[in-house]
Amino acid sequence: MAEFTVTPWEVTGEIDYEELVERFGTSRIDENLINRISKYAEPHFMLRRGIFYSHRDFDRTLSDYEKGKPFYLYTGRGPSGMTHLGHIMPWLFTKWMQDVFDAELYFQITDDEKFLFKDELTLEKAREYAYENILDIIALGFDPKKTHIFLDTEYIHNLYPIALRVAKRITFSTVRAVFGLQNSSNIGKIFYTGMQSAPAFLGSELSGEPINCVVPCGIDQDPHFRVTRDVAPFLGYPKTTMIYCKLLPSLLGGDKMSSSVPESTIYTTDTPKQVKKKIGKAFTGGAVSVEEQRKNGGNPDVCMVYHYLRYIFEPDDEKLKKVYDECMAGERLCGQCKMELTGKINRFLEKHQEKREEAKEMLEDFILRD
Amino acid sequence: MAEFTVTPWEVTGEIDYEELVERFGTSRIDENLINRISKYAEPHFMLRRGIFYSHRDFDRTLSDYEKGKPFYLYTGRGPSGMTHLGHIMPWLFTKWMQDVFDAELYFQITDDEKFLFKDELTLEKAREYAYENILDIIALGFDPKKTHIFLDTEYIHNLYPIALRVAKRITFSTVRAVFGLQNSSNIGKIFYTGMQSAPAFLGSELSGEPINCVVPCGIDQDPHFRVTRDVAPFLGYPKTTMIYCKLLPSLLGGDKMSSSVPESTIYTTDTPKQVKKKIGKAFTGGAVSVEEQRKNGGNPDVCMVYHYLRYIFEPDDEKLKKVYDECMAGERLCGQCKMELTGKINRFLEKHQEKREEAKEMLEDFILRD
Repeated sequence: MAEFTVTPWEVTGEIDYEELVERFGTSRIDENLINRISKYAEPHFMLRRGIFYSHRDFDRTLSDYEKGKPFYLYTGRGPSGMTHLGHIMPWLFTKWMQDVFDAELYFQITDDEKFLFKDELTLEKAREYAYENILDIIALGFDPKKTHIFLDTEYIHNLYPIALRVAKRITFSTVRAVFGLQNSSNIGKIFYTGMQSAPAFLGSELSGEPINCVVPCGIDQDPHFRVTRDVAPFLGYPKTTMIYCKLLPSLLGGDKMSSSVPESTIYTTDTPKQVKKKIGKAFTGGAVSVEEQRKNGGNPDVCMVYHYLRYIFEPDDEKLKKVYDECMAGERLCGQCKMELTGKINRFLEKHQEKREEAKEMLEDFILRD
Repeated sequence: MAEFTVTPWEVTGEIDYEELVERFGTSRIDENLINRISKYAEPHFMLRRGIFYSHRDFDRTLSDYEKGKPFYLYTGRGPSGMTHLGHIMPWLFTKWMQDVFDAELYFQITDDEKFLFKDELTLEKAREYAYENILDIIALGFDPKKTHIFLDTEYIHNLYPIALRVAKRITFSTVRAVFGLQNSSNIGKIFYTGMQSAPAFLGSELSGEPINCVVPCGIDQDPHFRVTRDVAPFLGYPKTTMIYCKLLPSLLGGDKMSSSVPESTIYTTDTPKQVKKKIGKAFTGGAVSVEEQRKNGGNPDVCMVYHYLRYIFEPDDEKLKKVYDECMAGERLCGQCKMELTGKINRFLEKHQEKREEAKEMLEDFILRD
């Protein structure tokens, strides 16, 4: 099996997501759990397709919910750059969760984290990105009455006491083992996981009673939340519930988009022309020639164009299957898929960019400050 | 030479203060420096008597001051218990500095630190002590217009961005070497020195230009400020100026009062009866019998009653010398000294306790909150 590494700050090698479930000790989202969810709504295509594929304790939290105990949602964003589709993907799912379960959402923007972990990033620049990213979050249509977005440095007064309680329970040995931090790591990095734990307990803290917290996020964040969950009982909070997705792959192939390679992803602020160009260069499962593809078919399983449809842009399972089958049968060529995906993305972005502009007037409806 | 350890959290063995200057690499406050200070006021008796005895860069800051560049003061208190005379001592000097140099003062109450470093202390209890301690600070008569007192957890919004900038420059290796922190130390402790650095740069931060910061405090705090000073140039701030005192010794002898031994010190809330009892039990330099003391004299150098006069309660050098000489000559017995010191302390505390009550109405004039 190929070597791969997944931490909140580094993904290298080709991720084996099934192996990762074993390695991290999370549970698979199985038929049974999806059936339980279907009592509330048609399960989201990201559940049906195994994109949100793993969890911790979501069954328990669902049982509590069935008994009338609500939960709140918590997710986050590390503002080290502009928003791309890899960020949007789990947020779309988070919005669906909010709508289906009528849940409050705390959305943490970790400007402190990105400042501490990126050598060249200033705190001012991280905050600038934070506000750019927040526009994208708001543009997705989260309920302003139930959605609370905050920058760590702006909501620190409320977060810090919780982070301190967490931090008192975590040793350097633990963060060294869990995150691979070193003696040469800066002391802000070492403390930081306490900050990422804080919103998992914020809902309980603010309401004065223990409330389940459900965190939809990439599985690369599991190391943080293993620590969060270990500490929870000592602080009198319920263990944080996790629901994990795979990472949107790079348009160029490989496992995760990289902000240092702009062609590997599409930013929410890209122009139609940029989108067309990037999709044009995307890695596909096409054969070496049209003739051969007509004859032997393509390979949608390795095709990034197909995966972008599967992860985000084709919610309809039947239509997606049709694309898959036609590709396999050689009835559909890469050019057609690329054109269709480009159209879908550009229609999405046109609307998104409008809403993103409107969001500039809505910041105060969403943002929590000390 | 006897072994001794001095860190911000632990003092063991008998401190050799001269050796400590070498060990820490600080400078002595010499005649020359005291002469320079005397241009502004009669040097405080704690300077004349070598109680505030060591510094870093105070000469440079004084040169800046002579050229019309003001400095601000920063000192602090770790609220792990009620205030005793060992805390009051450097604060009296700090007030003198404020008066003489017309300086703003930032007074940090490190409730986060004490919570992180004391296993049994809750954050709530640390905050309770914080407000008790603040009453004592206000009671000393600091200028409300120029004195800004804050709890770390209450002023964190302003402190955190500075602490982050500091933290990014400090590694675990450094805090391990400087403070003796271990792999088993909690990650809050590891981060904490960033918080203690923050007020050293707060004045510059708030005013938007670099201002010298002078920190009067016990020399046990030097490890923190070595780190602070190392980081300063990277952040564009002047290196923090330090002016260090020896620690008020225990009434029972030995180098530092201990809150776990209430007889070792006098709390600002002690009753006259408690004071009398504690001074009655104090370690003195008296001989084994009155006869022998009359004949051979006592030893004021090891006498805690004498040292309490010297450190705090007898500002008049001539009167202090008279006590010393009379003791040496056997003309003065321990009972007389104890009675006089008890009277001085109780007169001080009577007034202090009144002002402490009045301070309850003055909190808002002094406290900074986010």
